[in-house]
Amino acid sequence: MSLVLAVNAGSSSLKISLFRRSVDNAANPALLLSSSISSIFAPPAKFKFSFVALQHRSLNEEVESIHDHASAFMHFLDRLKEEASVDPIDVKHIAHRVVHGGDYISPVIIFEESYHHIERLSDLAPLHNGSALSVIKSAIRALPHAKSIAFFDSAFHKDLPTHVATYAIDQQVAQERGLKKYGFHGLSYAFILRAVAAHLNKAPDTLNIIALHIGSGASMCAIRNGQSIDTSMGLTPLSGLPGATRAGDIDASLIFHYTSRFPARMSHDPSISREVKVTEAEDILNFKSGWKALTGTANFKEITEKADTSTLSDPMSRTADPNTLAFRIMLDRILHFAGAYLSGSPRRCVGERSVELRRAVGEAVACLGFTAINEKKNSQVSDRDEGIIVDIGRGDGRKRMLVCHTDEQLEMARECSLASEFWV
Amino acid sequence: MSLVLAVNAGSSSLKISLFRRSVDNAANPALLLSSSISSIFAPPAKFKFSFVALQHRSLNEEVESIHDHASAFMHFLDRLKEEASVDPIDVKHIAHRVVHGGDYISPVIIFEESYHHIERLSDLAPLHNGSALSVIKSAIRALPHAKSIAFFDSAFHKDLPTHVATYAIDQQVAQERGLKKYGFHGLSYAFILRAVAAHLNKAPDTLNIIALHIGSGASMCAIRNGQSIDTSMGLTPLSGLPGATRAGDIDASLIFHYTSRFPARMSHDPSISREVKVTEAEDILNFKSGWKALTGTANFKEITEKADTSTLSDPMSRTADPNTLAFRIMLDRILHFAGAYLSGSPRRCVGERSVELRRAVGEAVACLGFTAINEKKNSQVSDRDEGIIVDIGRGDGRKRMLVCHTDEQLEMARECSLASEFWV
Repeated sequence: MSLVLAVNAGSSSLKISLFRRSVDNAANPALLLSSSISSIFAPPAKFKFSFVALQHRSLNEEVESIHDHASAFMHFLDRLKEEASVDPIDVKHIAHRVVHGGDYISPVIIFEESYHHIERLSDLAPLHNGSALSVIKSAIRALPHAKSIAFFDSAFHKDLPTHVATYAIDQQVAQERGLKKYGFHGLSYAFILRAVAAHLNKAPDTLNIIALHIGSGASMCAIRNGQSIDTSMGLTPLSGLPGATRAGDIDASLIFHYTSRFPARMSHDPSISREVKVTEAEDILNFKSGWKALTGTANFKEITEKADTSTLSDPMSRTADPNTLAFRIMLDRILHFAGAYLSGSPRRCVGERSVELRRAVGEAVACLGFTAINEKKNSQVSDRDEGIIVDIGRGDGRKRMLVCHTDEQLEMARECSLASEFWV
Repeated sequence: MSLVLAVNAGSSSLKISLFRRSVDNAANPALLLSSSISSIFAPPAKFKFSFVALQHRSLNEEVESIHDHASAFMHFLDRLKEEASVDPIDVKHIAHRVVHGGDYISPVIIFEESYHHIERLSDLAPLHNGSALSVIKSAIRALPHAKSIAFFDSAFHKDLPTHVATYAIDQQVAQERGLKKYGFHGLSYAFILRAVAAHLNKAPDTLNIIALHIGSGASMCAIRNGQSIDTSMGLTPLSGLPGATRAGDIDASLIFHYTSRFPARMSHDPSISREVKVTEAEDILNFKSGWKALTGTANFKEITEKADTSTLSDPMSRTADPNTLAFRIMLDRILHFAGAYLSGSPRRCVGERSVELRRAVGEAVACLGFTAINEKKNSQVSDRDEGIIVDIGRGDGRKRMLVCHTDEQLEMARECSLASEFWV
């Protein structure tokens, strides 16, 4: 039996899906079961385990013994054996989502002996790769017979045009240190590209898409003829759109004024300014900013419910309400990138999450030739919707608004299943 | 005699214009003479002095004794007396361009006794305000009878919508420390707005403009109904478009990887990463980056001459030539903001410098409804052109491309001349 485990480690969560690969249909690995573990660092962790074959029968439990990604992964392996009667020895491939691939532009097998891969990936961005790497280490220890393969979120953007990927900085320093735009959420964009191509019955390399990946981390990607030609994230996932706890684009000198010794209005007085370390800067800008810093909640649904969206069409309207402000900031930044990407060449589709945000984006881009949104279709899109693509436009014009339920685990399982070098 | 001196201090240059104000035509102060001093920190400085009344007769000299902005200003006052027979005692108003106004949203008089103003402005951004402040101090010392008035480049953007000006960071910290988007080049945008309004014979508050200010510092501004509703610079002039020696938008964590102890590919290893100070970060990103870091020259004209612009229409084309790369980066970033600002609402005009850049931008925005550029008109726009506005479009469609010769000194002189509180 050819089983593929697809592992997606977030900063405090872990999603794992188990697929069966068949040789004669490698492009469509079959989902057997899926699991998600959340609140990993706030015990008890919430563990969920669902069986596809059994009408999605699921097991929910709170687990005191889970206190990090490694223990979460070990708990999953226990349940896999006990509840699903799957012997971990039968799992021969484990696909791990790793955010930052640096120079790696295709998946790499990480054997126990090839620690230099792990070291390079740890160095690269501990903040973003840390949880994935601890699961990779657990997997290598617990399932030494299996191939642990790292799939990189940055790989989808490997063909970014040089002038898009290059920062206007000293190029010797840039090349020595790998300082350029990498871009992320690539597994999701690869999935979206394929799903939209299937929906429209076109070849992926003929499609022009502006894709929005809006989760607790948010980014956008301009896809032209099936290739990423620009994306909102950069050297790290920090830049671009704000996220739940991420600032998005800011002035690069902001962090120094943010961390100066005591509240001062942008002082450069040497007795006030102080030195800042990368870890402190990235912690503040990735984990202590974003919607949560603006409103107190990381739940965007709650924000949209409280926000006053009646004044969106007035660009100059001012608000003191934090929820309305957060909603408008998010909309403003999305429209900024949408406008920038749309002006490059006409594109066909925009897909993302949140009924209200879709409506607001739809109204704003209508002047650019998109068909208006069908409000009934828009509001009926459910997060639990089984369909992968929902067309929420009123007609079938050249420029469409589609909603796509992305699945990074499936994307990894598929890529893993199709890569013949992993199956020799 | 009511004389107004308008002083515009750059990082290594000083431009000064002398105007005569008449009470019955305060809106149109008359230019009497202008002076420019360059290479201030690379002696001998180049000093130029032109008399408008005398068919622009000019004096050019190299001056060994100029070694900073203060000595450059004093040399100007000497020449004013000797060459133009203007007694400095007759200068009653000196308008100084100050880049960062922080909380100041209108011009302020800086008397000798009101040093707290200067102190607040020095703290704010010594990198950007330093040269102006040293001239203000010289002026107060040398002409104690005159009013030195600071005009702020950030003031034009004072009505930016809250959701545009707010960064997605902790709002308590943001408010305590004044961390928001200010925007700059405001004197230039105010001038452009008035000049375009006059050219089109419309009221400024009916105009929608996307204005590009492309000098060695570069920015863009979306003007709607005569108000700035977005601009590419932010908390400081660092963000947005690249400039001659300025990086423009980068990932906020880049500077930490740029300055780590030895060439390492984005390592977070504590033995390699080191603490960074605001002054070091701002120095690298404002003075050691930009076109100069990409190509070796800060002269954009030289870059466009060497660049291969034949492949601009292919978004995926790659180049190893630094000049072509720098040109494409500049074009890419301009189009990014142009697209973002255009999608907000249809606008009427775009104005900026460099024949090649105008052609490339014009071709790229043609799909957005702009009339094509008249290449003859475009190439005939001269930097020495006396006309303020040149329409380089082929027709007179709703969306036009205009070139505007901006004049920050005139803008200050005019604002100063019109502000009755300065003339009591």
